[in-house]
Amino acid sequence: MDSMTIIAVASIVIAGITTGFGTLGPALSEGKAVATALTALAQQPDASATITRTLFVGLAMIESTAIYCFVVTMILIFANPFWNYVIAQAAGK
Amino acid sequence: MDSMTIIAVASIVIAGITTGFGTLGPALSEGKAVATALTALAQQPDASATITRTLFVGLAMIESTAIYCFVVTMILIFANPFWNYVIAQAAGK
Amino acid sequence: MDSMTIIAVASIVIAGITTGFGTLGPALSEGKAVATALTALAQQPDASATITRTLFVGLAMIESTAIYCFVVTMILIFANPFWNYVIAQAAGK
Amino acid sequence: MDSMTIIAVASIVIAGITTGFGTLGPALSEGKAVATALTALAQQPDASATITRTLFVGLAMIESTAIYCFVVTMILIFANPFWNYVIAQAAGK
Amino acid sequence: MDSMTIIAVASIVIAGITTGFGTLGPALSEGKAVATALTALAQQPDASATITRTLFVGLAMIESTAIYCFVVTMILIFANPFWNYVIAQAAGK
Amino acid sequence: MDSMTIIAVASIVIAGITTGFGTLGPALSEGKAVATALTALAQQPDASATITRTLFVGLAMIESTAIYCFVVTMILIFANPFWNYVIAQAAGK
Amino acid sequence: MDSMTIIAVASIVIAGITTGFGTLGPALSEGKAVATALTALAQQPDASATITRTLFVGLAMIESTAIYCFVVTMILIFANPFWNYVIAQAAGK
Amino acid sequence: MDSMTIIAVASIVIAGITTGFGTLGPALSEGKAVATALTALAQQPDASATITRTLFVGLAMIESTAIYCFVVTMILIFANPFWNYVIAQAAGK
Amino acid sequence: MDSMTIIAVASIVIAGITTGFGTLGPALSEGKAVATALTALAQQPDASATITRTLFVGLAMIESTAIYCFVVTMILIFANPFWNYVIAQAAGK
Amino acid sequence: MDSMTIIAVASIVIAGITTGFGTLGPALSEGKAVATALTALAQQPDASATITRTLFVGLAMIESTAIYCFVVTMILIFANPFWNYVIAQAAGK
Amino acid sequence: MDSMTIIAVASIVIAGITTGFGTLGPALSEGKAVATALTALAQQPDASATITRTLFVGLAMIESTAIYCFVVTMILIFANPFWNYVIAQAAGK
Amino acid sequence: MDSMTIIAVASIVIAGITTGFGTLGPALSEGKAVATALTALAQQPDASATITRTLFVGLAMIESTAIYCFVVTMILIFANPFWNYVIAQAAGK
Amino acid sequence: MDSMTIIAVASIVIAGITTGFGTLGPALSEGKAVATALTALAQQPDASATITRTLFVGLAMIESTAIYCFVVTMILIFANPFWNYVIAQAAGK
Amino acid sequence: MDSMTIIAVASIVIAGITTGFGTLGPALSEGKAVATALTALAQQPDASATITRTLFVGLAMIESTAIYCFVVTMILIFANPFWNYVIAQAAGK
Repeated sequence: MDSMTIIAVASIVIAGITTGFGTLGPALSEGKAVATALTALAQQPDASATITRTLFVGLAMIESTAIYCFVVTMILIFANPFWNYVIAQAAGK
Repeated sequence: MDSMTIIAVASIVIAGITTGFGTLGPALSEGKAVATALTALAQQPDASATITRTLFVGLAMIESTAIYCFVVTMILIFANPFWNYVIAQAAGK
Repeated sequence: MDSMTIIAVASIVIAGITTGFGTLGPALSEGKAVATALTALAQQPDASATITRTLFVGLAMIESTAIYCFVVTMILIFANPFWNYVIAQAAGK
Repeated sequence: MDSMTIIAVASIVIAGITTGFGTLGPALSEGKAVATALTALAQQPDASATITRTLFVGLAMIESTAIYCFVVTMILIFANPFWNYVIAQAAGK
Repeated sequence: MDSMTIIAVASIVIAGITTGFGTLGPALSEGKAVATALTALAQQPDASATITRTLFVGLAMIESTAIYCFVVTMILIFANPFWNYVIAQAAGK
Repeated sequence: MDSMTIIAVASIVIAGITTGFGTLGPALSEGKAVATALTALAQQPDASATITRTLFVGLAMIESTAIYCFVVTMILIFANPFWNYVIAQAAGK
Repeated sequence: MDSMTIIAVASIVIAGITTGFGTLGPALSEGKAVATALTALAQQPDASATITRTLFVGLAMIESTAIYCFVVTMILIFANPFWNYVIAQAAGK
Repeated sequence: MDSMTIIAVASIVIAGITTGFGTLGPALSEGKAVATALTALAQQPDASATITRTLFVGLAMIESTAIYCFVVTMILIFANPFWNYVIAQAAGK
Repeated sequence: MDSMTIIAVASIVIAGITTGFGTLGPALSEGKAVATALTALAQQPDASATITRTLFVGLAMIESTAIYCFVVTMILIFANPFWNYVIAQAAGK
Repeated sequence: MDSMTIIAVASIVIAGITTGFGTLGPALSEGKAVATALTALAQQPDASATITRTLFVGLAMIESTAIYCFVVTMILIFANPFWNYVIAQAAGK
Repeated sequence: MDSMTIIAVASIVIAGITTGFGTLGPALSEGKAVATALTALAQQPDASATITRTLFVGLAMIESTAIYCFVVTMILIFANPFWNYVIAQAAGK
Repeated sequence: MDSMTIIAVASIVIAGITTGFGTLGPALSEGKAVATALTALAQQPDASATITRTLFVGLAMIESTAIYCFVVTMILIFANPFWNYVIAQAAGK
Repeated sequence: MDSMTIIAVASIVIAGITTGFGTLGPALSEGKAVATALTALAQQPDASATITRTLFVGLAMIESTAIYCFVVTMILIFANPFWNYVIAQAAGK
Repeated sequence: MDSMTIIAVASIVIAGITTGFGTLGPALSEGKAVATALTALAQQPDASATITRTLFVGLAMIESTAIYCFVVTMILIFANPFWNYVIAQAAGK
């Protein structure tokens, strides 16, 4: 196994794991937030405007952690500095 | 094992794991959201419009994390830059 | 072990794991949704139309994550691009 | 270990694991759904028709994920494309 | 270790694991269903006919997943196509 | 290690694990069912006939999954087709 | 390591594990059953006859799974067919 | 490592594990039973005779599973047939 | 594997893991905070100003731990002193 | 590594693990029993004699499982038959 | 692998793990504290000054444990005495 | 690695683990007992003498399991018979 | 790998793990203590002085366990006797 | 790796683990005890003297288990008899 292969494999593996597992937390949290919002709506229909607005701000905050994971995955697949370095070396060799 | 094989194996393995495990969170969250929506409907049938709308927006947010995983899987199977590079090298050799 | 064997083994293993474990989340979620629907029906029989409709939409959303896993499994068994490439190479050799 | 043996072993192992573990989720979910149905019946005997119907539809949905696992197991044991390819090669050799 | 031994070992191991672990889910679910039925009976003795009938249908559904595991185990021990193929080859050699 | 030893070891190991772990689920379920029966009896002593009968039917269903495990263990120890085949070969050699 | 040693080691290891872990489930279940019986007695002292009888029948059922494990352990230590076969071969050699 | 050493090591290891882990279940169960007995006594001091008697019978049943583990440990340390066989062979050699 | 490759691989792996797993805690916490905020809003709509302000301060504190992880990831990918040292050595060689 | 060293190491390791982990269950159980006794005393101060007596009997039963582990540890360290045998052999050599 | 590489890899790996996992506890705790603060605000709006002040002091205490982890990470990346020693040795060689 | 080193390493490792993990149970139990004592005191301040006395007896019982672990650790570090034997042999050599 | 490298690596790894994981317990405990303090404040605003004082004493006790971990980490990084010994030996060589 | 290095590494590793993990239990327990004390204070402010005194005695008991771990760590780092023996041997050589 040459360097290029190892780096490629590591990038593939970590790209998948980062997104596959990193979305676990946000998904569970959003489910919890949505579920509580529905309970709150059923309990206090008059405050639906405030509840909905707070829910959306909260979902955006939570989604941000999923975005971090997705961004790292995309960097690892399409803008990986280590891979670029090795490719450049292989091309210049 | 040559480079091509290793990268192919890593892509297959991670493709399956990313989708197989990455859908765990969204599935559980959607189940929770739907379950709470049903409880809320039974408790406050008059607010069914607001509840249903909030549920669908929430499900879309949650489903988005499952989509991230599916997208990464599809990229790894059908648009894998590392595999393409190795194939190109093998063809040009 | 030649390349073909390794890729075949990886495909078999991941095909099984993706479906075997990937259906865990949807199964548990559907069980939860159905259970809550039954509780809701017992609590508010008059809202059975809304409850049933919301339940079915929710089950479809949840089932979609199981379908993702099944689709990945089927792609890995019957439309695996890595396997096809290796078979083509073996045939052309 | 030749290719044929490895593929056979992988198929056996994954066939068992997919069914053995993949039925965990559906079994637990069905248990939950049935248990809730019984609670609902005890609480609201008059709605037994609706409850029973919803229960059966829900059980069918949940059983579908168990069926996916069983189908993948059967494909791996009796209609395994990788095994067939290797057998064909061994026969043609 | 020749091919025959490996396949035999894999079949034995997976046969035991599939049944040993695959019955965990059904056992827990049936325990839950039976326990809820007893609670329901104590709470609403008049509905015992409906409760008992629903319980038995539910137990049958849950037992079906245990049966899947037992069937796969029996296939692996007594009707294993991979073992049969290897035996046939050993006999024809 | 010759084939016979490996198969014997695998049979011993799996025989123990199948019973040792496979009885976990039934034991816990029976404990739950018995516990609920006692609660139900304390709550509704008049329905003791129905409760006891339902309990025994349920215990029998649950015990069936323990029996599956015990049967597989006994087959692996005393009627193991793979072991018999190897013994026959060793005797005929 | 000769065959005899390996089989002896496997038997020792599995004998201990089967009893050591296999009694976990029954112990927990019996604890639960006894605890519930005590609660039930405190709540309904008049039904102590029925409660005690049901408790003992239930404990017997649960103990049966512990007995299965102990039986398998004793078979593996004192009536192990694989060990006997190897001893016979060593004696006849 | 000769056979004797391996068997001795396996016996030591399993002897410790069987008792060390096998007492976990009984200990937790007895704690639960005693705790419930105390709650029951505080709730219904008049039934202390029945409660105490049931508690002791239950503790005896639960302790029996701990005894199984201790018995297996003692057999493995002081009456191990595999060790005796190897010692006899070493002595007779 | 030369030094450069190993350091690159370690950086890739840890970069993904730090973000993928490190966002689990913040995501769950934010979900909890948002959910409680919604419950609080439904319970005390008049205090919505205080609740919302406290929520946003809290979310900022929690997000800070996710930021730590993201910062470490970015440092490891784009400003890794160990990688820079090795690159400098390789260039100066 | 000669036989003596291996047996010594195994004895040390298992001695520590048996006590270190084997006291987990008794400790937790005693904590639970003491905690419940305190609750019971606060709820029914008049029954303090019965409660205290039952508590001490229960603690003795639970402590017995910790004693089993300690006994096995002491046997392994100070009265280990396998170690004695090896020492005797080494002395007699 | 020379000493320098190993130390660099260990530093990278531990730097990521320390922050990635070490922020889990603080994140969960802050989420809990913020959530309770919101509940407390909804329950007792008049005490908002005391609650907010106590919350911020508490968050600072909790954040301190996250800071410890971040500090250790930064020391390992940018002020690692072991790395400095090795670099100095390499430079002086 | 000579015998002495291995035994020393095993003693160090197990000494740390026995205390490090063996204090987990007692610590949690004492926390629970103290917490319940505080609740009991708040609920029934008049019984503070009985509660405090029972608490201290209980803490002593629980602490005893921590003492067992500490004793084993001290034996392994300062009065280890296996280490003494090896030292004696090394000295006498 | 020479001795110095191994000791450096072990020190780095354990330094990170001790702080990274050792702060988990204190962080969770402080979160719990702060959360309860907030609940207590909302429930009994008049006792805020006593509550706040007890909270700070408790936080200091809990923080002390985090300090232990941090101290061990700092000792391992900056005052490691094993490292100093090896450095001294290397310098004196 | 010579003996000295191995013993040093084992001491470092176990020193960190013993403190890092051994403080988990005390930290959680102290958090629980403090939290309950705060609840008790809010519920019964008049008994604050008794509650505070019992809390401090309890915290001291719990802290003692953390002290055990810290003591073992310090012994392993600064008063390790195995290390001293090896150092003495190396010096005397």
